[in-house]
Amino acid sequence: MVGGVRAVARCDELGVAPYSDAPDMLFRAYLTPAFAAAQRAIAGWMQEAGMQTRIDAAANLIGRYEGTADGPALLIGSHIDSVRDAGRYDGPLGVMLGIEAVAALHASGRRLPFPIEVIAFGDEEGSRFPAAMLTSRAVAGTLDPAMLEVEDARGLSLDEALAPFELSTLTFAQAAHAPALAYLEAHIEQGPVLESEGLAVGTVTGIAAQLRYAVMVAGVAGHAGTTTMPLRRDALTAAAEMVLAIERIARDDLSDLAATVGCLSVHPGAPNVVPGRVDFTIDIRSGDPIRRDRAAEQIIDRIADIAERRGTDFDIRRIHDLPASPCDPALMDLLDAAIAAQGQPPRRLVSGAGHDAMVMAALCPTAMLFVRCRGGTSHNPAEHVDGADAEIALQVMIDFILRLGDHVDA
Amino acid sequence: MVGGVRAVARCDELGVAPYSDAPDMLFRAYLTPAFAAAQRAIAGWMQEAGMQTRIDAAANLIGRYEGTADGPALLIGSHIDSVRDAGRYDGPLGVMLGIEAVAALHASGRRLPFPIEVIAFGDEEGSRFPAAMLTSRAVAGTLDPAMLEVEDARGLSLDEALAPFELSTLTFAQAAHAPALAYLEAHIEQGPVLESEGLAVGTVTGIAAQLRYAVMVAGVAGHAGTTTMPLRRDALTAAAEMVLAIERIARDDLSDLAATVGCLSVHPGAPNVVPGRVDFTIDIRSGDPIRRDRAAEQIIDRIADIAERRGTDFDIRRIHDLPASPCDPALMDLLDAAIAAQGQPPRRLVSGAGHDAMVMAALCPTAMLFVRCRGGTSHNPAEHVDGADAEIALQVMIDFILRLGDHVDA
Repeated sequence: MVGGVRAVARCDELGVAPYSDAPDMLFRAYLTPAFAAAQRAIAGWMQEAGMQTRIDAAANLIGRYEGTADGPALLIGSHIDSVRDAGRYDGPLGVMLGIEAVAALHASGRRLPFPIEVIAFGDEEGSRFPAAMLTSRAVAGTLDPAMLEVEDARGLSLDEALAPFELSTLTFAQAAHAPALAYLEAHIEQGPVLESEGLAVGTVTGIAAQLRYAVMVAGVAGHAGTTTMPLRRDALTAAAEMVLAIERIARDDLSDLAATVGCLSVHPGAPNVVPGRVDFTIDIRSGDPIRRDRAAEQIIDRIADIAERRGTDFDIRRIHDLPASPCDPALMDLLDAAIAAQGQPPRRLVSGAGHDAMVMAALCPTAMLFVRCRGGTSHNPAEHVDGADAEIALQVMIDFILRLGDHVDA
Repeated sequence: MVGGVRAVARCDELGVAPYSDAPDMLFRAYLTPAFAAAQRAIAGWMQEAGMQTRIDAAANLIGRYEGTADGPALLIGSHIDSVRDAGRYDGPLGVMLGIEAVAALHASGRRLPFPIEVIAFGDEEGSRFPAAMLTSRAVAGTLDPAMLEVEDARGLSLDEALAPFELSTLTFAQAAHAPALAYLEAHIEQGPVLESEGLAVGTVTGIAAQLRYAVMVAGVAGHAGTTTMPLRRDALTAAAEMVLAIERIARDDLSDLAATVGCLSVHPGAPNVVPGRVDFTIDIRSGDPIRRDRAAEQIIDRIADIAERRGTDFDIRRIHDLPASPCDPALMDLLDAAIAAQGQPPRRLVSGAGHDAMVMAALCPTAMLFVRCRGGTSHNPAEHVDGADAEIALQVMIDFILRLGDHVDA
């Protein structure tokens, strides 16, 4: 079995009991018994691959493969926690591919001029505690201690959940890593771009900057039978025009810009009443924050135009503003070269979703490799990755590591 | 106090206890204690106006003013039940104006060549039992006996509710009226047309034919950050385009045609998820059923076009089909002449909402006079009618009755 296929098979193995806390689906949350069982299995695979393992102060599992020199390490990681009723590859695939890459180096007796550490992060999804990426924040040294004062749905505090691991929130921040050479993360795309272009892998340029707005459109409710068309101030037809304008602005940009109206509610919401009020959300993302902000301005201007023309009032509130996290240009070039060396066309794409790499960018330059997943489906048991694609990703990662070694040597 | 002003004042008097069953708002449902109290008060006013009163087999209150001949009667009516948290004029105003018209004839000692009966219908709104216009259906002789097997929200059957009135569902249909000369109903417009044109009253041409549809649009849900714009099959943007097409078709008709999307719901409905499914309703009305049906066809065609172009599936189900109920052309002419005689510009308009007149059209020719109401507001305590407008309506009704008398004599 080639390494990529074995990586997929190990994700499958981790998809059921004892590595899931639920009997009929995959749900592996941070610090649960299934989480501890998965850590034990993965530690065994790390040791087989020639690594020494440890659990850090944030309950991350780390395997270390020494280099010919003892400088800053190349970190390879992803997360092993999952959402409820999860797929098997979102997170674990990146960890398994990191182990396979080291296993291949170890099998051929190769050492790099830097140590390699494979990190299995504990909390990326935030599916147990009301916080996300606690563990990569700890490693990156960007943790706000207030974030640790959280409880799970059963009222168990993070501190209590850490106790069986002989850890505590008091020492959690000691997981902060020493300066590192780079961070590499492989992850399923969770989107349909690579599949639609027939590509196995792609180089991530960065994690999209995200803005979110809440919009309220106020018209005048009226009887559907007695309010004639010219006299209407229909909040829903105004909102419909806004929804289409938002789509048009994002489409016309012909870039990675994405704008989504995901929630929309109509009041009073009766078949025979002209809508008097509509509330909706807008989510705007781009790898380029300037592009994102320009689109947001255009969208707000269009909403104001439409509201004025239709005689409706509106209110728009910004409810989120997450900055972009660009990947390192030199590392992207190395990743592209490694992809090309496997006979694959390089393809750069932005990550719309957040990842540990976004947090790790505060510690060191980052690179991310996306792997095609069927139908773009994720956070769903139907999530699927082909072993052949995982093998391509693995060869790219090995090649990337070797090129990085040449780069450091030079 | 002129009759029109007194009619409004009597509606106001009926707007509070003991004529409402709720202490803090107007709610007078069919066959309740407040309903019985209102009937007693109204019967007294009918008797003062020279009428003999009776309660028919459907618990309608009827006042009769004899004519010089004993042929088919002119019926003047509306309803005295209300919705919850109602305005004071929707229904009662038509009854009060009927009483004032007879009172004016009686005061001047005039008899017409036909009897006049003022009917205070008991159930138009359907706010107690899950059926509407039970009582005008009984009078018109179009009642389906199965409609009487209903219970109110407390589990009380219609038969049990009739018992205190010494009535029964077994004899309910005996309320069927003898052939009648005509039915005249005055009612607040419940819409903004008359107000927007500065008119006190208008001649109703008929009650709109109504179609209602339930539409489901199925796209593909996706992550708002990872599903790029070109690859989306967004159910909400498709639905937004449909909503605007529906509005456009109704507006471009430049007629009484009205089309409304009053309910719309988005699934799964999260800010960061591209909508996978949208459900919405369409309500289409026109006084002209051919116009209505042609618009419905155009709308369905456009929905199909939009769905196909956007790669979404759709399903459309007809959930209501209420026929139009045109008013009698000769009676409309009489009403227009009576309006002009009061120095008011005649204005014909369709009624988007249903009324007892719609049902009474099965018994005899019908005419309806709309009275301006402030802001088009109805089914709301803010409902308001000016006494001056009610007085104009009253003079129009008296003139109409006299013209009808001349017409019958001729």
